[in-house]
Parts: sequence; C-alpha cells; structure tokens
Amino acid sequence: MTHETIEAIRWRGEALELLDQRLLPGTETYLRITTPEDTATAIRDMVVRGAPAIGVTAAYGVVLAAIEAQGKPSWRADMVEAVELLAGARPTAVNLHWALQRMRRRLEALGEPDVVALLAEARTIHEEDVAQNRRMGEMASDLFDKPVRILTHCNTGALATGGHGTALGVIRTAHQKGLVEAVYADETRPWLQGARLTAWELWREGIPAELIADSAAAWLMRSGRVDWVIVGADRIAANGDVANKIGTYSLAVAARYHGLRFMVVAPTGTVDMDMADGGLIPIEERDARELTRVLGEEAAPPFAAHNPVFDVTPAELVDVLVTERGVLHRPDTAGIAAMMGGE
Amino acid sequence: MTHETIEAIRWRGEALELLDQRLLPGTETYLRITTPEDTATAIRDMVVRGAPAIGVTAAYGVVLAAIEAQGKPSWRADMVEAVELLAGARPTAVNLHWALQRMRRRLEALGEPDVVALLAEARTIHEEDVAQNRRMGEMASDLFDKPVRILTHCNTGALATGGHGTALGVIRTAHQKGLVEAVYADETRPWLQGARLTAWELWREGIPAELIADSAAAWLMRSGRVDWVIVGADRIAANGDVANKIGTYSLAVAARYHGLRFMVVAPTGTVDMDMADGGLIPIEERDARELTRVLGEEAAPPFAAHNPVFDVTPAELVDVLVTERGVLHRPDTAGIAAMMGGE
Repeated sequence: MTHETIEAIRWRGEALELLDQRLLPGTETYLRITTPEDTATAIRDMVVRGAPAIGVTAAYGVVLAAIEAQGKPSWRADMVEAVELLAGARPTAVNLHWALQRMRRRLEALGEPDVVALLAEARTIHEEDVAQNRRMGEMASDLFDKPVRILTHCNTGALATGGHGTALGVIRTAHQKGLVEAVYADETRPWLQGARLTAWELWREGIPAELIADSAAAWLMRSGRVDWVIVGADRIAANGDVANKIGTYSLAVAARYHGLRFMVVAPTGTVDMDMADGGLIPIEERDARELTRVLGEEAAPPFAAHNPVFDVTPAELVDVLVTERGVLHRPDTAGIAAMMGGE
Repeated sequence: MTHETIEAIRWRGEALELLDQRLLPGTETYLRITTPEDTATAIRDMVVRGAPAIGVTAAYGVVLAAIEAQGKPSWRADMVEAVELLAGARPTAVNLHWALQRMRRRLEALGEPDVVALLAEARTIHEEDVAQNRRMGEMASDLFDKPVRILTHCNTGALATGGHGTALGVIRTAHQKGLVEAVYADETRPWLQGARLTAWELWREGIPAELIADSAAAWLMRSGRVDWVIVGADRIAANGDVANKIGTYSLAVAARYHGLRFMVVAPTGTVDMDMADGGLIPIEERDARELTRVLGEEAAPPFAAHNPVFDVTPAELVDVLVTERGVLHRPDTAGIAAMMGGE
C-alpha cells in the first residue's frame, strides 16, 4: 500500500487494529480487535465511521470470523452468522454490504474459510479503496483551473476510508498540486466529525484551513469566500440522489442559491442500483442524547430531539459526481446507468 | 408588570439581578449587580444576551451609575463615562444604544442623577418591552389560520428580552391560542442558545417541542415538517435587511427554496435607520475557541476558526416583519420608512 500519513485501519498479526476515532483529537489510541463481534461493536459505536472505512473494516471482520471458524464443522453457519452481524452494524452504509458481499463470494469460491486467501481479499478491498481515492482526487482536481476555495462537511478523509479520503482526498490531491486557496471545514454536529476529525487530519497534513459552525456555511457563501462545496456520500441512488451526513442537503441548497458548484466524491461501491431514488434510502435516526448532551455534558434540559443522521440531496442539486470511473456532470438515472454499466 | 413564568432581569432593593444564562439549564442562579462596570461585564460575558434584554439591562446599569454619582460634583462626567462603558459592551446590539439614549435624555431632562426618576424610566423601558412582545405575539399569531409547525433559531424568549420574547413570544402566544402544532428549536452553535435556553424555556412552559441540529433544518423543511421559520433580530437596517444570530441567513435561504414563510419579530427599537442596508452593519467576530472548544472540552486540534456571530439576511428573503407597530409584508425601504415615520 502507498504510504499514508494517517493509518486508521491496519492489520497486525492476527488482529485488526482501529484508530479509536471517538478519542480524537485528544488521544491517538488503536483498539486491537480479534473477533467479528467486536468488529460489529466497533462499527456500531463509531470507533470507525465513514462509509468506505466501514466496508474495509467489515472485510477484515470476515477474516476474523474465518480465523475462528476454520476447522470447525459449523464453519458455514458461523460465517453466515458473522456476516449478518457485521451487516447489521450500520443500516445506511451500502459499502458495508458491498464489501461483505465481496468477501462472501470469495468464501464461496474458496469453499472453506481459508484465512490467507480471505485476508488477501480484505487487503485488496483496502488497497483498491485507497487507489480509487487517489484516482478520484486526480480527476476532481483536474476540474480546477486555478486555486479554489473549498467548503467541506463531516469527515471524508483517511479516517473515513481505507486511506487518502474521498472529498478530503480531493482536497489532499488539490493541495499537493497547489490548487487549494482555502479550506473551510464544517464542524458537523452532532458528532463534530469536522471539528474532531477533519480539522485533525488537515492539521496533521499541514493544509491551512478554518473551522466554521455548520450554520455559518451559507453566510460564507454569500460573503464570496467559497467556490466549491465538496462532500462524500454514504449511499447514492440509481438516479443520482445522495444520502450523506445530515447538513449536506442544506449545503447543496445554499450552493445552488449562490450559484456555486457542488461536488460529490464517492467510489461506485457507494452506488446502490437497487434504490431507484433517494426517497427509498432508509435514514438512520440516532439517540436524542447526541443533541441534548455535548461532549458528555448536558446541554439541554430533559427534552425531545429529532436526530436524523443523514439527509438526501436530490441529484438536481449535484453539479458533479466523481467516482473512480470518471467525472459525471449533472448526474441522473441515465448517467449513473452508463457509469455503472461496465460492471 | 404582567406575570411571567421566567424572570431573567429583575430589580431588587438597590441592585440589578440577572439570571446567569451561562449556567443554564443546569443551574438557576441570579447574579446581584450593583455597579455600571459589573453591568457592562455581565453584558460582555453573556450573563445576559439577546438584543432587547441587553437594552433593559443597560437601562438599569444607568440607574446603578446614578446611585454612585448622586451628590458628587463629578456626576456629569461619571454618568457620561458609565453610559460609554455600557455602550461598548456589545457592538452589534442596537437596542443597547437605543435604551442608553433614552436614559440619557431622561437624565438631561431631570438635570441631576435622580435615582427614583431614572429607575422609573428603566422600569418603563422594561415594561414596554414586555408589552410590545405581547402585542407582537398577538399580531403575528393572527397570521395563522390553523395550528402551524414552527422552526426557530437561537433564543428569543423571556431570557433574551424584558419578558415573553419576540420570536419565542409569538410561539408562546400562538401556543396559548392553540395555534401551535409543532416547534423545532435549532440548537444554535456555537453558543447552543437553542439547546441551553430555548429548550429550557419551552420545557419550563410545557410547550412540546423538539431540538434539532442547525444543519438538519433544511432537511426538516424538505420533509414537509415546517410551515413557518420565525426568528428575532439583532439589528434591522432601513431597507429591511436583518442582522441576527449566525445561521439565520441559512434558514432564510432554505425557507425560500422550499416555499415556506420566513418571519422576523422585533420591536422598532431594533431598527437602525442610520444603516441604509445590511452591508453597513458591523458583524461581530468572536473567539475561535467558541468553536474549537465545546462546553469546556477541546473539540478540535489547535486550529484556525472563522467565527462570525451574526449574519445578514437580505430583506428580499423576509416574508413578514412584525414589530409592535404592526405587520409588514415583504419589508423594504419604503415599508420600513412608513412604519418608522410615526416617531
């Protein structure tokens, strides 16, 4: 694998090691995980997050299941159970299912829980993700004919993927090419992935950037400080609708209102051709306490909260979709079908 | 004064008592203030916030100055100094200057720092603010022909005014009239006035409501859950542009995009006829640590932040402006001039 400054997911010995993202930016600690159960828990508890990173993590989780199942008469049932457990850890993340399906196919082809072969497959998924991200970064930054001002949301970097990142990968590549004039990172409530993770990645990489409150984004656009809004995707429907972190839709509306360009960067593993449009994508609702408590302190009185984790940006608000297969302007059903047709 | 459930500013003995809003919702403590210096500090440190509440507080601050100055040969210079100190405590709050000007005029008419007369004037400013808010609540809720779903931002309630509130006052009045179907309160980063103060007020009043992340507002609108966005104002320019808490502009853009109505509720004391348009209104920038720290904990690594506290919503995005003088649809320079003409 190419050298990465930040390595959030790594395989060491017979264990999966995950940089515990819940403790960032204060503490850099790796959790050592040796069972598929602990892998599922780590995904559910957001030790690791970001659609592609969850996919890579789940693939290694299947390897851990194989280590346990090998040589047992019950290996088939054990492996099915482990895959189902991993699949249930985050409902919205289509990459999770994509990665698990790929691991399951490999297992079926092998006809036994061959740990070495399955580990090779998981590593390939991991490496391909990084390679895809680098390719997307190249293609997306080729759209910039001069240094640009970029606003991004949530964390889509090395911490959210196998490495390099999707939207933040574009920022990384563009920065290396001298094509970044300014980066604004939304803090991204309620989990503060922007303040805790994106700011940390940008700081580690030495990319100058400023943190803003989510609600300041539209005002920044009006002040003429933004050229591109660049985000990742949790799932993309067959018509180009994009499910992503709550707040993405708000940015898309504001970008359109101000005549700015809105780019989505995601590998085709994120495209779910079974979803005709974004209205069919299940939206995960999380605990109200993510809003009523902030970093462990009570912010609100005992109070109801509405806490959808994702929103859906309609394809008509997306100017450019960049996948590892190319750049799609104004994505729609026909464009997505053509892009995915090569499968 | 009419009975209010929540009394954030009160005069007791020869002192001003302020409910310390920095400690809400965890603790309800009053700070007892006896000098104009401490009054200015309380305003600057956000013990009290919200444009009308700051105005009322500053008026009592002038009374405290009169208590100190009475009988001294230097009383004129002392009073000028105290008023200047109070005026400098928050640059954006036009009500602060309006209230201080009124107190200064009264002082000039009196020809001496007559504490009883100045206290009467401060009490009148306070009572008028509450009466104005009740009147605005009545007029605004008359616009609803059925129970409505309201989204609000920041805190504009009893804690932000002399009592009852502006935008939240409309919600109070409409709730009493059975005209509220749902209330959504933005948490309002970075100070979380929505999560800490608005949620607390609604909870204390028994008005059912839900807290949302600021960035979820546009998605809520798209989901068809909102009829009206109702906000207060920190300052209104002569053309109807509205300076208000950061995030207001984002809501106005999203409301227009979704064809929803956007209402601003503020007494005419908030209108600054010296500002031809919103571009002239100074925008306060506060410390980056308000973003990089959350409730006292480090959220972000050592990192730059851009932290404008207010934004300006252009008049063309405002459907209705409600002041104590009436309801102005589609406010513009002519409409504002006609409304203010009666002065």
